[in-house]
Amino acid sequence: MQFLQATYQVRADAGDIEARAEAIALEQTVELPRGAVRDRFVEEEILAQVQSVTPASPETFHVVVRYPLATTGLEPAQLLNVLFGNTSLQPDVILLDAEFPPALLSAFSGPRFGIAGLRQSTGADQRPLTSSALKPMGLSADALASLCRTFARAGIDIIKDDHGLADQEFSPFEDRVRACQAAVDQVYEETRHQAVYAPNLIGTPETIRRQANVAQQLGVQAVMVAPMLVGPPVFYELVETQLQVPVLAHPAFGGALRIAPELLLGKIFRLFGADAVIYPNYGGRFSYSESVCADLAHHLRGSWGHLQPAMPVPAGGMQVDRVDEIVQFYGADVMLLIGGSLYAAGPALLERSREFATRVRQSATN
Amino acid sequence: MQFLQATYQVRADAGDIEARAEAIALEQTVELPRGAVRDRFVEEEILAQVQSVTPASPETFHVVVRYPLATTGLEPAQLLNVLFGNTSLQPDVILLDAEFPPALLSAFSGPRFGIAGLRQSTGADQRPLTSSALKPMGLSADALASLCRTFARAGIDIIKDDHGLADQEFSPFEDRVRACQAAVDQVYEETRHQAVYAPNLIGTPETIRRQANVAQQLGVQAVMVAPMLVGPPVFYELVETQLQVPVLAHPAFGGALRIAPELLLGKIFRLFGADAVIYPNYGGRFSYSESVCADLAHHLRGSWGHLQPAMPVPAGGMQVDRVDEIVQFYGADVMLLIGGSLYAAGPALLERSREFATRVRQSATN
Repeated sequence: MQFLQATYQVRADAGDIEARAEAIALEQTVELPRGAVRDRFVEEEILAQVQSVTPASPETFHVVVRYPLATTGLEPAQLLNVLFGNTSLQPDVILLDAEFPPALLSAFSGPRFGIAGLRQSTGADQRPLTSSALKPMGLSADALASLCRTFARAGIDIIKDDHGLADQEFSPFEDRVRACQAAVDQVYEETRHQAVYAPNLIGTPETIRRQANVAQQLGVQAVMVAPMLVGPPVFYELVETQLQVPVLAHPAFGGALRIAPELLLGKIFRLFGADAVIYPNYGGRFSYSESVCADLAHHLRGSWGHLQPAMPVPAGGMQVDRVDEIVQFYGADVMLLIGGSLYAAGPALLERSREFATRVRQSATN
Repeated sequence: MQFLQATYQVRADAGDIEARAEAIALEQTVELPRGAVRDRFVEEEILAQVQSVTPASPETFHVVVRYPLATTGLEPAQLLNVLFGNTSLQPDVILLDAEFPPALLSAFSGPRFGIAGLRQSTGADQRPLTSSALKPMGLSADALASLCRTFARAGIDIIKDDHGLADQEFSPFEDRVRACQAAVDQVYEETRHQAVYAPNLIGTPETIRRQANVAQQLGVQAVMVAPMLVGPPVFYELVETQLQVPVLAHPAFGGALRIAPELLLGKIFRLFGADAVIYPNYGGRFSYSESVCADLAHHLRGSWGHLQPAMPVPAGGMQVDRVDEIVQFYGADVMLLIGGSLYAAGPALLERSREFATRVRQSATN
């Protein structure tokens, strides 16, 4: 029998922790007191087992629970349900980590393009990639396309929609995608730099399906989706059944504290098919530590069964003068996403963006 | 202009809170420093405004932010994005509450059946309703159907799948639904008590669509869905476009985000179309307080534009001997969901369940 293994951080008194750990194992499988489980198959093949309980701090413990793999149905929604369904409602528990056995990994395709595919799309063989965001929401499709043209001329590799660009009346999805894709194509004609424009797909499953079709028909070479906003199983199904281009996963609505970002963004998003994963870099306006970022990047890029490595995309309040430091931290297999601090240059947006693109290219040769 | 208004609880020093509040307003709309916003339309029609900052405790503040409604695109995924997209990644912030203006309410249908519809389905005109759950996962379809028959004979109104029942090999969805629906129909022939069986729909959008079709063709009169597991926009679209029967919303995976349950389960689930909402009752194995439960029930049942009232379904480790107290707390418009403590009766499951159903009926006449 293969097991899905989850590690929880649980806040409890030493005298209560064994019972609390057992309660999690029951809650996440049979949702019954152990004494009420009378079926032998259930007892032997379904009930989760507490594998270990280890003190982690004066007030917390690490609890490792092993779930028989059959409980997950090898399916994305039920996988999340087994890992953290009801237990997510209990404020003393954080889902820290999970180990996925071979039979589960085999059920998922993972990234279809991954790092290698993104390098191919952008023509950047070995160096770190650059990315920026079209914003703010409220601009017209033409104004966003004009920004897109500027970033492309500056030599940025991937130009994505801000995750707040949906299908609002001031910039309807199709108008925006047509204008922005035309902008990167026009710059390619001028400069032979082919920037990739990645529109944000957001809405109900039917809306996203329509948006993906429109975008692919208009020739886009990548898209962005926020799995937690649209639902992780929606993201998974979109990747599996509909996308012919790489997908960047955005962390919006990913919450903080209750599922460790290393697990959610680093492992689960990759498992469900993200080719690149955007996350708040250390030292920005969010609070991920260096160690969280290092682990996250390791989960995205490390060897993991048949799953292709996915590209880490650190972002969130980074400045151009941090380029060398960030590239040193992550190495070459990284995509730096800088938005706000380029815009802060105002009329010098093109120059600041070019400086960004150039510094990243130079950093790679240092 | 109409505004979506959100209240956040923010942990900050008094000297920092004004800047922190402003940063949330920017993060959730333009994702730019205010100085980098140069477009007049964006400044006047898109940028969120901090409405008020109020000390709530020595370490926390309540920050009220007003978002121009156009930012939401009147669409469920983008609505969640504006309320708590990137800000959910910042551990010092909790989304406490939101007020939805008339133009937003008008864009959503809300519950299609609501309390009145559930009363009609179950034939229970005025009294509180009863509910129990089929479990544990691992039982065969026939074993679950046998439990379903027992609950129906006991006079339980709504018999739902445990939220851990998916489409696992030990109890495939279609086999289970066919067997359980046949069980409640058989008991109706015997006793004229028509229990409603509600299967759990879970999976990717395509899987859920197929499950809903199968279930409705097999004659089920209600279904259950966990919106946070499948994605809230999936839940919304399922309700809007496919379901002809009432839907119970389950809270699983809802705590992974730091959103107050009164808002998420009480307002957002109702807005997106839940006819009944299951939540952990006070005094059980979860930690919702009496005041949270009272507010949650108030949000579900209270007058709210054109939206029908939805049924509160307190659950989670409740005992039969608490029936009177719970009915007193909530009044008659409630559905009590008791699972585990009925199963704890072992061979006396029928008697314990009958006691539950009877006590609820009697409580209503007290």
